Amino acid sequence: MTKTDKQNQVNRGLSGVFFERSYASDIDGVAGELRYRGYSIHDLAVHSTFEETAYLLLYGELPNANELSEFDEQLKIARVLPPTLLDIIALVREAHPMDVLRTAISALSGFDEERGDNTSDAVLRRGVRLTSQIPMVVAAHHHIRQGRDPVSANPELGHAENFLYLFTGKTPSEAAARLMDVDLVLHAEHGSNASSFAARVVTGTEADLHAAMTAAVAALSGSAHGGAAENVMRMAQEIGKASNAAAYVKAKREQREAVMGFGHRVYRAEDPRARHLRDGVETLSREMGQPQWFEILQAVVAAMKPYSRHGINVNVDFYAGVIYFLQGIPQDMFVPIFAVGRVPGWTAQIREQLDNNILIRPLTLYDGPAPRPYRFLKER
Amino acid sequence: MTKTDKQNQVNRGLSGVFFERSYASDIDGVAGELRYRGYSIHDLAVHSTFEETAYLLLYGELPNANELSEFDEQLKIARVLPPTLLDIIALVREAHPMDVLRTAISALSGFDEERGDNTSDAVLRRGVRLTSQIPMVVAAHHHIRQGRDPVSANPELGHAENFLYLFTGKTPSEAAARLMDVDLVLHAEHGSNASSFAARVVTGTEADLHAAMTAAVAALSGSAHGGAAENVMRMAQEIGKASNAAAYVKAKREQREAVMGFGHRVYRAEDPRARHLRDGVETLSREMGQPQWFEILQAVVAAMKPYSRHGINVNVDFYAGVIYFLQGIPQDMFVPIFAVGRVPGWTAQIREQLDNNILIRPLTLYDGPAPRPYRFLKER
Repeated sequence: MTKTDKQNQVNRGLSGVFFERSYASDIDGVAGELRYRGYSIHDLAVHSTFEETAYLLLYGELPNANELSEFDEQLKIARVLPPTLLDIIALVREAHPMDVLRTAISALSGFDEERGDNTSDAVLRRGVRLTSQIPMVVAAHHHIRQGRDPVSANPELGHAENFLYLFTGKTPSEAAARLMDVDLVLHAEHGSNASSFAARVVTGTEADLHAAMTAAVAALSGSAHGGAAENVMRMAQEIGKASNAAAYVKAKREQREAVMGFGHRVYRAEDPRARHLRDGVETLSREMGQPQWFEILQAVVAAMKPYSRHGINVNVDFYAGVIYFLQGIPQDMFVPIFAVGRVPGWTAQIREQLDNNILIRPLTLYDGPAPRPYRFLKER
Repeated sequence: MTKTDKQNQVNRGLSGVFFERSYASDIDGVAGELRYRGYSIHDLAVHSTFEETAYLLLYGELPNANELSEFDEQLKIARVLPPTLLDIIALVREAHPMDVLRTAISALSGFDEERGDNTSDAVLRRGVRLTSQIPMVVAAHHHIRQGRDPVSANPELGHAENFLYLFTGKTPSEAAARLMDVDLVLHAEHGSNASSFAARVVTGTEADLHAAMTAAVAALSGSAHGGAAENVMRMAQEIGKASNAAAYVKAKREQREAVMGFGHRVYRAEDPRARHLRDGVETLSREMGQPQWFEILQAVVAAMKPYSRHGINVNVDFYAGVIYFLQGIPQDMFVPIFAVGRVPGWTAQIREQLDNNILIRPLTLYDGPAPRPYRFLKER
C-alpha cells in the first residue's frame, strides 16, 4: 500500500467502523430508537425497574417473579463496602468524585471474593456486586468529604430508592425514587459508547473485570462523554430564568460555541431517552416548587428549534442534571450517577468480549520524521 | 446498508484499521524495524539512555547536553510520593502489583500540583512526574507488602539505576544498571498497542492524563499484553534445564498450546527489541553464575525453529523476564516494569491525541433478539 492510499484510510475516531458484534442493545440513530435485547427503551422506562433491566442486560431475558426476587436478594447482599475501602475513600476525598470512584473500583479488585477470576460466571457475579457497590462508593464519598460517616444501606428499599436514601438517610418520596429508577434504566446500556469501548479494549488483553470497569469510569470522566448533565445544570443556572434563554442561545450560536445537552454522535433524531426525563423534570420541578428549571430548559429547546433541521436535538443528559439537582445531589456527582446506571451494560459487554475475546489493536499511521542517523550527545 | 453487507464489515480486533496518525514511533512488522521519531531502536538501545529516549519521545528531538541536564533534574525532583499515597498502597498491598499500580496512579490524580489541567504543557509536566513516580510506586509496594519502609530515591543515580536501588537499597553494578536502562529504552514506545490505544480512547472523551494512564495500566495488566515476561520466566523454571526444552516445546505444540514469548500481532520478522535483551541475558546470567537461564531460553528458540517459517519469532518479553529475575525482582512485578518503561510513550500519545482530539467511538453490529413486545412481570 502506498502512503497516499494509507492516508485515505485513516478512520479518525473510528466513526462508522464496526469492531465487534453485540447482543446487548440496538440503536437506530436515524429513527431515534433504542432497544435493550429487543425491548424498546420506552417500554422499559415506563414498565420496568432498574433491577429488571439489569437482569435483562446480564441474562438476556426479563426475569420472572422468582428470578427477580433472587436477583434482588443478590443485589441487596452486595450492598456493603470493605471497611478498608472507606479508609481509601477518606484518603482521596478531596479529589473529583469520578476520580474517587475510579480509584475505589480499582482498589475493590483486591477485596473481591473472586478477585482475578475472569471466567464468565465469576465476571457476572462480580459485575452484580459492583452494581451494588458503585452507588455505595458515590454516596460514601459524599458523606466522608463532609466529615460524616456514610449511611448504611437499607435492605427494605429498591436499588434507586436505596441510592437516594444513601445520600439523605431518608426514604425518598415514591415519585423521586421512581424518577431516579427511570434515570438508571435509561443509562443502563448504550452500544459501543466510549466507556464501554474502553472496557472492551482492556478486556481484550485478558485483563479482569475490575480493570475494565476502572477504564470505563476513566473514559466516562471526560466531558465529551459523561459530563453533559453537569454542564447543562450549570447552563440553566447561568441563564437564570426562561426569558433569558433565547438571548443566551443566540449569543452561543454567534460565538460558535456549543449549547450544552444537544447533539449526539449516534442520534440524528431526538435521543429516545430524553422524553422520559423531560416528563420527570416537569413533574418534579413543579412538585418541589421550582418550576423555573423546567421552564428554562424548555425555553432553551424552543430557542434551539431553528437549528434542529441540522440534526441537533436534546440528548439524555439535557434533563438528567436538573433531576439530580432537585434531589440535592452535588453537581460534581452527576457523572458518577451515570456510572451507577451503566454498570449492567458494561458488565454485559465485558462478558460478550470475553466470550469471544480478541486483542483490540488498531493501527496508527506514522507521520513523523523519516529514518535518520543517530547523533551522539556531543554532536547535538 | 443491508445486514449482510454490515456483517462483512466487522473488523474484529480492529486489525489493520488505521484510527489516527502518530508521530512517535514507526513499526515495520515485515522488516522487523522499530523507530522512535525516526531513530532506529538499535541506535537508541546501544547509544542512548532512558532519559534521552524519554526526552526524544516527549519533545520530538534528542536533547543537547543542557536540555538533558535540565530534564534529568526535573525527573529527579519528581522522585517523591505524597505520604498519603504510601498509606493507600499499604491498604491495598495484598493485591497484584499491577492492580496496586493502577490504584496508585488513579489516586495520584488528586495529589498532582496541576490536577485536572489537561492543557498540552501541563500534560507534559504531569507525564514527566509520573515517569518518576511510577517506579517509586512499584518499589514502594515491594517493600510495604513485606512490612518494610520504602527506600527513598537517590538523586546521585540515573533513572534505571535508581529504580534498581529503590528495590535493594544498594547501588547496582554498572552492567545491571545498563541492562535495566536498555530494557526501559526498548519498552518506551510501541505504536498503538492496546495500552496506548486505551489511553487514547480515554483521552478522546477529554478525560485527563491520570485517567488515561490508569486505563493504560488496566490494559497492560492483561496477559495478552504485558504478561508475557512473567509467563516466559515461569516456563523457563518449569523446563528446568536446557536439555528438557525440545520435549517441552514438542508437547506444547502437540497440545496446540502457546509457547510463551513468541509471536506478536505486528511483527512477522524477529521483534527488533529482542536481540538487545538476548545479549544482556547472556552476559548477566553468566556473570551471576546462573548460565542455565540463557541456555534454556536458547534451547527453546532452537526447538521453535521449525515453526518460525510461519512467522513465529521471539518477542521483547521473551528475554525480559530472566533479566528481572536475575536482579531479584519478584515475578508479579515484571509487568509493572513494562509500565515503568512505557510512561513516555503513553504521555507522547496522549498529547498527540489531545492536540487534535476526537471521540473514539466505533460501532458494534447488533446481532441480538429482534424487536419484541414488552411482557409484564405477571406474564413471565
